[in-house]
Amino acid sequence: MRRAYLDHAAATPVRPEVLEAMLPYFSERFGNPAAVYDLGAAIKETLEEQRARVARLIGAAAPEIVFTSSGAEANNLAIKGAALANLKKGRHLIVSAIEHHSVLNAARFLEKFHDFEVTFLPVDKYGRIDPPRLQKFLTPATVLVSIQHGSNEIGTIQDIGELAARCRTQGVLFHTDAVATVGQVPVDVQSLQVDLLSLSGPALGAPKGVGALYFRDKLRLVPQIHGGIQEDGRRGGTENVPAIVGLGQAAALAWGELDAKGRYLARLRDNLIAGIKERVPQVLYTGHPVERLPGHASFCVEGIEGEALLFMLSRQGIYANTGSACASKALKTSPVLVALGIPPDVAQGSVVFTFSQDNQDEDVQQVLEQLPPAVDRLRSFSPVWRKKMAAAAGA
Amino acid sequence: MRRAYLDHAAATPVRPEVLEAMLPYFSERFGNPAAVYDLGAAIKETLEEQRARVARLIGAAAPEIVFTSSGAEANNLAIKGAALANLKKGRHLIVSAIEHHSVLNAARFLEKFHDFEVTFLPVDKYGRIDPPRLQKFLTPATVLVSIQHGSNEIGTIQDIGELAARCRTQGVLFHTDAVATVGQVPVDVQSLQVDLLSLSGPALGAPKGVGALYFRDKLRLVPQIHGGIQEDGRRGGTENVPAIVGLGQAAALAWGELDAKGRYLARLRDNLIAGIKERVPQVLYTGHPVERLPGHASFCVEGIEGEALLFMLSRQGIYANTGSACASKALKTSPVLVALGIPPDVAQGSVVFTFSQDNQDEDVQQVLEQLPPAVDRLRSFSPVWRKKMAAAAGA
Repeated sequence: MRRAYLDHAAATPVRPEVLEAMLPYFSERFGNPAAVYDLGAAIKETLEEQRARVARLIGAAAPEIVFTSSGAEANNLAIKGAALANLKKGRHLIVSAIEHHSVLNAARFLEKFHDFEVTFLPVDKYGRIDPPRLQKFLTPATVLVSIQHGSNEIGTIQDIGELAARCRTQGVLFHTDAVATVGQVPVDVQSLQVDLLSLSGPALGAPKGVGALYFRDKLRLVPQIHGGIQEDGRRGGTENVPAIVGLGQAAALAWGELDAKGRYLARLRDNLIAGIKERVPQVLYTGHPVERLPGHASFCVEGIEGEALLFMLSRQGIYANTGSACASKALKTSPVLVALGIPPDVAQGSVVFTFSQDNQDEDVQQVLEQLPPAVDRLRSFSPVWRKKMAAAAGA
Repeated sequence: MRRAYLDHAAATPVRPEVLEAMLPYFSERFGNPAAVYDLGAAIKETLEEQRARVARLIGAAAPEIVFTSSGAEANNLAIKGAALANLKKGRHLIVSAIEHHSVLNAARFLEKFHDFEVTFLPVDKYGRIDPPRLQKFLTPATVLVSIQHGSNEIGTIQDIGELAARCRTQGVLFHTDAVATVGQVPVDVQSLQVDLLSLSGPALGAPKGVGALYFRDKLRLVPQIHGGIQEDGRRGGTENVPAIVGLGQAAALAWGELDAKGRYLARLRDNLIAGIKERVPQVLYTGHPVERLPGHASFCVEGIEGEALLFMLSRQGIYANTGSACASKALKTSPVLVALGIPPDVAQGSVVFTFSQDNQDEDVQQVLEQLPPAVDRLRSFSPVWRKKMAAAAGA
């Protein structure tokens, strides 16, 4: 059976060029970058080259990058690290209501253990935050605002430049979780005007187990993994050299290919959405229709459960998601979709398709052939759907 | 030039069998363990198999293992996670004065940000802690005691079973940093009676970027990397599947070969130390003479700087360390050696050799040929040494 893998936001294979670059660092180039002799110095140099490559991709300077074990760890370091380094300013934090769990739960930790007050900012029906509205929530005690750049659940991209500018004029630090955007669309920390930005290896075709945090020029952060002198004292633990080499290589590959990639992914996505619109009635398309990730299609199919649809599709070789990978098993109804004002019964029909450059037109075709009959079948079993149809027929 | 790499505690190559086991998980088996479809379920199953393998190596049950990105992260999760989960009991923490930076700095974080009182326990001249002495420091507010199992700097192995027993009878949690021992000597959490135990991948021939924390049956921990439902809510971020497979494979290999490995490493170490004793006068051997890591030789050469000696040795293809890899560039005098009562001028002559199964008798021979003339040469330049020799001649 042909396989159409369309869950690249949850997991994606490491790019072959990336794995090839990593391999020597498991065996012959295994040294500890902190070692005093030449083998260590060579590894340290390699590490710094990767830092420069990652920095270049986002318009940063190499010393502004700290490597972490994941995007989630980068988010934790940004939120807790910056908040705890600025306790003198105050204990107020603002995050959007649709942040990743790593941001939401880091904020809740500060609330519980450090007496922070956290504002969970509401979003509009597309999941966007209105800059003047954000500004109204800023207080003299506000230390940090954290708003996701792109959403892996609904595809929406925020106007981070405008949001960050409002914070900057008030002297409030701004962090963006750019795990979904770096490697998908051009991201530049100078034009976004952010102080902190998280990114993740897998989103770039680098392996799991590596991410990075950008922090503006010497910005203070309280480490969250305490240890030795690694990462200039900002993050303890021996540097994960092979994975960092993978991230650097992936960043170098992404640099220069993003425009063509964006166009390619957007075409696949648009074809998928247009095809679904033609073939399946009563579908709610989630997230912003234009300001969205190029390789991301998300919608709620009324009258069914997304998980049941995914199961049927997976038996036809099609792999997709119901929303955020980390939350997919934890909750029946996505808090992100609820925050958009989508009724819970509709939100339960959520499905998300995320593309990579490895996807082809055939993958879209396969979905367009298999999804409509699967929806029909599930709807035929659904009491909710039958009641709705009966009501519509009666009206 | 022949290379004698004897700095395995700082970094060691990934074992070929381990890398081979990992490789499929970068490419074809790349799924997210949280995915709802069969590809995800297969990866989740793989992950749980690795958990069982790591658990078996230390006599634990699989659900008692949480995977981390390093031994340092495991130490952070143990110290901060257990302390913050037990604030109701009190805010007193005991660590030994010679712990790894990740333990010391996690303790200092609790002191600074959570009003903990931290007792830094003194050690004897071998770096050991006297169990009755530990017991005297326990108070009703003591939440946790953390004492390293084996020291990568001086090789000493503590009597953890006896220390932990004293805590257990008083209802105090006990953590041991076993990064230096797991994979080197048999470690069993049941006979050690510990509640928490940290281990690290590289020490087992697994890659950098993976470690694990053992926590006794359902013991509560406040996560330090907040995120989704991964690791049963104890550690956020997508699981680093390839590295975890590497750790599982390395644990399976270590299981069963530890006794033979220990004998092999101890023979190399003993030959090295006997040879140095014969050839170089005025050397102080650090750590416990018997209760020590089998592959670990450490000593201070009086009258010279360890770093200068290492530099000369590295030009002869010999790679060793001055102490802890994470601290080696940060400090001139090791606080661990100072804690043993070694005068700072002697401590500066510290060198550490750590062996692996890949080392041969020839490596020892190479050191015994190259080290004595290098020491002579450095001593001939040393005003401290010349003064000492002159004083000795005058006396």
